[in-house]
Amino acid sequence: MTEKIDKIKEDISYYLDHQKKVPEDWVEHNYPIDIAEALSDLKDSEINNFTQLLRTEDLADIFEESEEELQKNILKCKSSQEIIDIFSHMAADDITDILGLLKIQKRKELLRHMKQDEAIVLKNLLGYDKESAGGIMTTEYLVLNKNLTTAQALSKIKDIAPDTETIDTIFVSDNNKKLVGNVDLRDILSAPRETKLVEIMDDNIVKVTADVDQEIVAQKVSKYDLTVIPVINKKGILIGIITVDDIIDVIEAENTEDMFKMVGVHEEESVNSPLFKSVKRRLPWMFINLFTAFLATFTVSYFEDVITQVVALAAAMPLVAGMGGNSGNQTLSVVIRGIALGDIDFKENWKLVFKQGMIGVINGAATGFFTGIILYLMYGNYYLGIIIFLAMMLNLLVAGMFGFLIPLTLQSLGVDPALASAIFLTTVTDVFGFFAFLGLAKLFLIYLV
Amino acid sequence: MTEKIDKIKEDISYYLDHQKKVPEDWVEHNYPIDIAEALSDLKDSEINNFTQLLRTEDLADIFEESEEELQKNILKCKSSQEIIDIFSHMAADDITDILGLLKIQKRKELLRHMKQDEAIVLKNLLGYDKESAGGIMTTEYLVLNKNLTTAQALSKIKDIAPDTETIDTIFVSDNNKKLVGNVDLRDILSAPRETKLVEIMDDNIVKVTADVDQEIVAQKVSKYDLTVIPVINKKGILIGIITVDDIIDVIEAENTEDMFKMVGVHEEESVNSPLFKSVKRRLPWMFINLFTAFLATFTVSYFEDVITQVVALAAAMPLVAGMGGNSGNQTLSVVIRGIALGDIDFKENWKLVFKQGMIGVINGAATGFFTGIILYLMYGNYYLGIIIFLAMMLNLLVAGMFGFLIPLTLQSLGVDPALASAIFLTTVTDVFGFFAFLGLAKLFLIYLV
Repeated sequence: MTEKIDKIKEDISYYLDHQKKVPEDWVEHNYPIDIAEALSDLKDSEINNFTQLLRTEDLADIFEESEEELQKNILKCKSSQEIIDIFSHMAADDITDILGLLKIQKRKELLRHMKQDEAIVLKNLLGYDKESAGGIMTTEYLVLNKNLTTAQALSKIKDIAPDTETIDTIFVSDNNKKLVGNVDLRDILSAPRETKLVEIMDDNIVKVTADVDQEIVAQKVSKYDLTVIPVINKKGILIGIITVDDIIDVIEAENTEDMFKMVGVHEEESVNSPLFKSVKRRLPWMFINLFTAFLATFTVSYFEDVITQVVALAAAMPLVAGMGGNSGNQTLSVVIRGIALGDIDFKENWKLVFKQGMIGVINGAATGFFTGIILYLMYGNYYLGIIIFLAMMLNLLVAGMFGFLIPLTLQSLGVDPALASAIFLTTVTDVFGFFAFLGLAKLFLIYLV
Repeated sequence: MTEKIDKIKEDISYYLDHQKKVPEDWVEHNYPIDIAEALSDLKDSEINNFTQLLRTEDLADIFEESEEELQKNILKCKSSQEIIDIFSHMAADDITDILGLLKIQKRKELLRHMKQDEAIVLKNLLGYDKESAGGIMTTEYLVLNKNLTTAQALSKIKDIAPDTETIDTIFVSDNNKKLVGNVDLRDILSAPRETKLVEIMDDNIVKVTADVDQEIVAQKVSKYDLTVIPVINKKGILIGIITVDDIIDVIEAENTEDMFKMVGVHEEESVNSPLFKSVKRRLPWMFINLFTAFLATFTVSYFEDVITQVVALAAAMPLVAGMGGNSGNQTLSVVIRGIALGDIDFKENWKLVFKQGMIGVINGAATGFFTGIILYLMYGNYYLGIIIFLAMMLNLLVAGMFGFLIPLTLQSLGVDPALASAIFLTTVTDVFGFFAFLGLAKLFLIYLV
């Protein structure tokens, strides 16, 4: 992959050095996304200079595929008219994303300079939540009246095709513009010329309204193996489509978010994020973790007298907490993934908390038994062995139950189920683990000293 | 969603009670995948009974969309001939997946009873690694010679279309059958009738060979916004295609795998897995976690004399370990996601280890300073505060570096970078955290007692 990008960089230097217009087929042959990747490593002045050597449509292709950072860099050197020229080669959903990045002042100015009908479409799209179906849909779709014949449909398709994002699925509306079905291009091609669309369309289609969360949209596209999903308004009229490439982006983003939120990392962090941005974004979560960790410290300090008498407890207590933490995180991962894939719902599945608890008890008993024996061999006191066996079993029971309950509780509070869940969970397993182990030790203290 | 499934179940009961053949449009109107979901809750005998009321093509549609468990249930009541009839309505890649589930004996028997040309295709597909491009590709594609005119192409497309998985992208080969480009159906439709495909095709296409890992294939499809990617052999001849719906399944599976493997959960576990299967699969990882946790115990027990003299250390030490664990897990998540999305490569990016270490140092200093003050207020000894400040800073440095190094080391060993990484990481942060904190305490012991 890297050689490809290096070759592109060489080409860019050549065009820059000779101030030579970039030929049409260079962009096509090097893929806009790879050119964007190469560009993002260049200096601002070089980027600006290079964009002036590109045809507007080629710049638009590259611009669409660029990371936010590069997009901002490109935009800041362009006049409003230049930006509108770039936009004229882009799909409405991509333009909306860009407008969303700009300051309101600039956004309004651009909208004022655009053709009125285009500005209205964009203003509409800007009104939707960024993470809803409306926020990711595009308006470049193909909808035909159900009474058209396949021959009429084909001639329309030939005319309109260049402006739509996808043409293998054609949407069909009734006379009131209501979406009533869709038809595959292949069926239009193979049906007799006089067949009406209504006769060959599929009237049982999966669709969403504009306010549906993008994660739900992604679940539907994935479940029903769609390449495009229509978005309708409350009257049932088609107002946009979402194509599968955008759905893949949603899936990847939601997956990153789940994994990051569990441990308190901002969804936009990457290994390439600037140092202080990472520090600043992680620090609040570290402080939350610190406060919860102090709960464990208070628990232990409550038992300081016991530890003073049996110092082996201090060495053994990380075992109870550590095993609880890992066991609880196992359940947590399974539940968060289950929620993401749409497999779990608290109302229906709350009984599964007992199963997760049982898994904890059994694994706690197995590992606790083994740990008990080792501690007995280390310290020659079999009460210590029994106590750690009981404490591990109890703590893994609690770990399994909370690993299940934490994400589902967060979800029913309307919060992301992954949010800081691993931090909350370790608090529970640390505090309860120390409490169970040291508490049992206190009860049986006479047998331990 | 649930009402839909409930309605389907009612219908199924009706057909079962009246032993009535299931009408053709019932399956179409209820989506095969939803019917599969409803079926999987029924008893084996009911499932078997119901499948006999379905037309074979409808059963095939439902069967394709079923979970493994249900597929096995359906197959076990069917004769070889019945299974082959079902297969005749399925795509080669889906048949291959089913054959992969069966015992070798049964698989061989089925292949023997099939038409020879079909059996050869399947045997070939079975030869590929399940997680490679060859293992997920299908052989139902459309390839046309580059010298055909668009008119000839269209007439071929009309004939072949019903048998291919996708027709909006047509692949183009030269006279030696080598893949040389692709052309969008829209371009064929809008070009003049006598235009040759070679004139309108895109000759710069993204493709993979059959041995490429499915994760890499998914990265390419996602990066270049493809709906289908061609798979070629070493001679450059097209041997299969992978469609985007299968890519979404790969992405979801890889994401689940990453999240699960970090904490030692089997990639196929879900909240609905049978209790003992979950126990059995998680237990080995719990024992690995136990062995590594003992390293922390040994570390603490080495300092038992220090703890006996300053028991506050026992209460404070979980702070150092816990903060290290969370901080390291933050870096770990960012790195594992970065690897999954193809953003990080050890050879190029090893220097980033220092950045992750620095994030740790800074966050360790900030939280450690705060912790030091609290401990000073709790125990009235400012040396204790200084020691925990230093220990947390050091441990978070180590946490950041190992959070980066563990997954990349696993990857360069050819192992999944997520594999038990969270378990290894907590071992490092526990052991080093205890060592740094108790070691410093031992050094400054005279100031603490």
